[in-house]
Amino acid sequence: MKKDPYIVLEQKFNRIYQLQHLASIAHWDMAAMMPIGGSQARGSALAEISLLLNDFISESEIGDLLKACNEEIQRLTPWQQANVREIERKWLNATSVSGELVKAKSLAGSKCEHAWRTLRQENNWQDFQPLLQEVIDLTIEESQQRADAMELSAYDAMLNLYEPGQKSTVIDDIFKQLVEFLPSFIQQVLEKQKSQTVLQTSGSFAIEKQRQLGLALMKQVGFDFQHGRLDVSAHPFCGGVPEDVRITTRYSEEDFSESLMGVLHETGHAKYEQGLPEKWRNQPVGEARGMGIHESQSLFQEMQICRSQAFIKFATDLIKEHLVEKDSDPNIWNSDNLFRLNNRVKPDFIRVNADEVTYPLHVILRYEIEKGLIEKKIKVSDLPDIWDMKMQQYLGISTKGNYKDGCMQDIHWTDGSLGYFPTYTLGAMNAAQFYVAASKAIPNLKDQIEQGNFSQLNQWQSDKIWSQASFHSIDGLMVYASGETLNPEYFINHLKNRYL
Amino acid sequence: MKKDPYIVLEQKFNRIYQLQHLASIAHWDMAAMMPIGGSQARGSALAEISLLLNDFISESEIGDLLKACNEEIQRLTPWQQANVREIERKWLNATSVSGELVKAKSLAGSKCEHAWRTLRQENNWQDFQPLLQEVIDLTIEESQQRADAMELSAYDAMLNLYEPGQKSTVIDDIFKQLVEFLPSFIQQVLEKQKSQTVLQTSGSFAIEKQRQLGLALMKQVGFDFQHGRLDVSAHPFCGGVPEDVRITTRYSEEDFSESLMGVLHETGHAKYEQGLPEKWRNQPVGEARGMGIHESQSLFQEMQICRSQAFIKFATDLIKEHLVEKDSDPNIWNSDNLFRLNNRVKPDFIRVNADEVTYPLHVILRYEIEKGLIEKKIKVSDLPDIWDMKMQQYLGISTKGNYKDGCMQDIHWTDGSLGYFPTYTLGAMNAAQFYVAASKAIPNLKDQIEQGNFSQLNQWQSDKIWSQASFHSIDGLMVYASGETLNPEYFINHLKNRYL
Repeated sequence: MKKDPYIVLEQKFNRIYQLQHLASIAHWDMAAMMPIGGSQARGSALAEISLLLNDFISESEIGDLLKACNEEIQRLTPWQQANVREIERKWLNATSVSGELVKAKSLAGSKCEHAWRTLRQENNWQDFQPLLQEVIDLTIEESQQRADAMELSAYDAMLNLYEPGQKSTVIDDIFKQLVEFLPSFIQQVLEKQKSQTVLQTSGSFAIEKQRQLGLALMKQVGFDFQHGRLDVSAHPFCGGVPEDVRITTRYSEEDFSESLMGVLHETGHAKYEQGLPEKWRNQPVGEARGMGIHESQSLFQEMQICRSQAFIKFATDLIKEHLVEKDSDPNIWNSDNLFRLNNRVKPDFIRVNADEVTYPLHVILRYEIEKGLIEKKIKVSDLPDIWDMKMQQYLGISTKGNYKDGCMQDIHWTDGSLGYFPTYTLGAMNAAQFYVAASKAIPNLKDQIEQGNFSQLNQWQSDKIWSQASFHSIDGLMVYASGETLNPEYFINHLKNRYL
Repeated sequence: MKKDPYIVLEQKFNRIYQLQHLASIAHWDMAAMMPIGGSQARGSALAEISLLLNDFISESEIGDLLKACNEEIQRLTPWQQANVREIERKWLNATSVSGELVKAKSLAGSKCEHAWRTLRQENNWQDFQPLLQEVIDLTIEESQQRADAMELSAYDAMLNLYEPGQKSTVIDDIFKQLVEFLPSFIQQVLEKQKSQTVLQTSGSFAIEKQRQLGLALMKQVGFDFQHGRLDVSAHPFCGGVPEDVRITTRYSEEDFSESLMGVLHETGHAKYEQGLPEKWRNQPVGEARGMGIHESQSLFQEMQICRSQAFIKFATDLIKEHLVEKDSDPNIWNSDNLFRLNNRVKPDFIRVNADEVTYPLHVILRYEIEKGLIEKKIKVSDLPDIWDMKMQQYLGISTKGNYKDGCMQDIHWTDGSLGYFPTYTLGAMNAAQFYVAASKAIPNLKDQIEQGNFSQLNQWQSDKIWSQASFHSIDGLMVYASGETLNPEYFINHLKNRYL
């Protein structure tokens, strides 16, 4: 008897899922546990499984099975149909670029990324430029091969790796609204915050106490410790597998807030992973719906919930209980001051340190530049000047001669991950839109947050977002959860409400 | 141009090595880090990679490549020749049993092992017996298929999985000498120890302090923390990969000594792994030379070195510094008392808790029984009676009706790992023999130990054992390191010297 082609596809992707599990845990271990001497061996092992997984995903047999499934697609359930669509996307992404190019880009990317770690610190653009040039040249070639296979523009073909189905024409329009709004809005906010009294929390906050506070708040907002852990790594991330999500943070004894908000940010990612539907976990349709939606869940947790006045009202007692002596200064340790501290706005050079208001301009700058690179309208050699010009235009600060805090600050381009940057700001906007939708569904949401009660909100997110995994398209999910496709008005209103 | 078959073999086994790396780290993580909710997913992922590795090792192409290599074996260097021999052994082990039988045994083994965890606690032999029967029946079939493929006796074919090239006729002879010596020797030791004053260390020893002490002694004896870690797990083990060895322990606040000696035992395993030759790490010839040699390195560290009077003299100050107040009882906290405490002998039911003197009899009892099972001279239904009989004969205690501390105490048979037990005692004997050889090479070895100086000893072990990996046969390695094949006299003399 001939085997059902759909079942065979599921089996193949189940195997891929199982092997990805091991790669994910090994990645987490590398960042959180591994002693330094293990790095070379770990690098080889991860490279090997990545090769193997790529071989498995790009098997020619999968193309045949997809064809057979698509011929009788109506025979399948809606989720199975969506799974076929997602498998096809993965297969296309894996097969549309020649093996030679993949290898060449991977080599050039490793070389450039490795050199960047030193050259950035040295502010050495001159030696970095040729390395980046090679990566960008290969990425342009990659984008063209992908574009041909997927009938998309070159930039959209790259964007689709992170944000399936998204078009840059749509993003252009959305980002245009932000560029029109933000620069003058930032001036208003700065003007307002100038007159506010904000007192710094000072002192030394023991790491173990910070950790306990982080764990307590993770628990409060619904992180499932039966299926996850919190650890430490140099660069915080959310990793592991949906059944066992590993988030990390880093601590500074001087500043507890950055780590705490980082932990809550990663908790937002983690709750999404933990909430993916069990039935579909081992299949592509069971994965999170792209990076923009993923970032929406971390920013929903961090920006919409945890930096809100209501949440900080709730959390202040817990924070004090964990971190400060009984006779602490009440002018510092009250929710109003903590709220203001957690929502300061300041135009600055570094994206990863940016506040919620200036962050989108960091992203838009990068988006415009990387699109220009892919479309060959911008040359690598012009990067420092263009960066400086845009920074002046958007944030009123200059990076002239300051490469390390300018166009050399991010890792993304060093290995050719062009197309990723816009997902940060799409995520921020999605999050604001979801918050409004959740507020409509839960009329007393703010009160619940102030009481530290997140069960109804988590249920809403689970129903509307997490349980839907990749069943819908991105637009489809936005409509399913919020009633409309991405509309930047929600984000703009959120900023106005919080900062003016 | 046709590819060199030896090079192709190396490439294939390099890939296998890389994937095993990920499986090892995931195993460690499962035991030391994973939250409980991750176990099902982890189990599936590990099963998948185990299947995949088995497919890779048993590829028919490897058989052809081995044939081609063996036809021109003289063309290869001695290490390459040894590598071909080790690859052939792996390939034979993987291909000599039918896929169906492997599957059936794996299923029956999982079922039996799973049930055992409960049934043992319930002392329920009746329900355990049929499950074990199924596993033993399949293991007998396995041993016959292996025996046919490898032209060995059925038991030797199983033994060879753990102790390559070892014959049960040789073990019979060696164990016979121990059985003749030990029972009356134990009585002499008990008599002597009866008259000794031994004071128990009492008090509560904070886990973090025990951990710091363990780390300090690991460092002292040469564990390389650039390539390894110490963590906690329910069942202590040595895992990870040679480039990054993960050892674990468990702590009891009442008894620091068990954990400390456990840490040093695993450190012995770890130093062997860390000392394997870098050049050959990704090939079968670069692996440790079987379980008996591996155990010899842990027992060398624990029994020959760390429980010796010289080592305890050295370590007493460190122990006191980490664990006890300045005004501690000097009658307890002195090296003579600590030495006696760490070398108490007491015939008891449980192998894993046994002292160095009674341990071999626990092993010999199991060896005789499992050989009888494979040779169909002993029936599963007779296990409890035979166990009781042999316990009375060897250790003078009865397990009648006490299944859980009798024939149900070990995990090994529940999944059909017959042939493993003898390696524990072979390891203990190898260790004693190595110690005598090292003492000849380093005349003031005892003084060096008493000063906490292990560099010369580690160099000797590295030269004679670790760096040799699987280049020699087991007998060959014994001769290379100690001048002769395994001779139980060294172990017997060690016991006499230490305990009489």
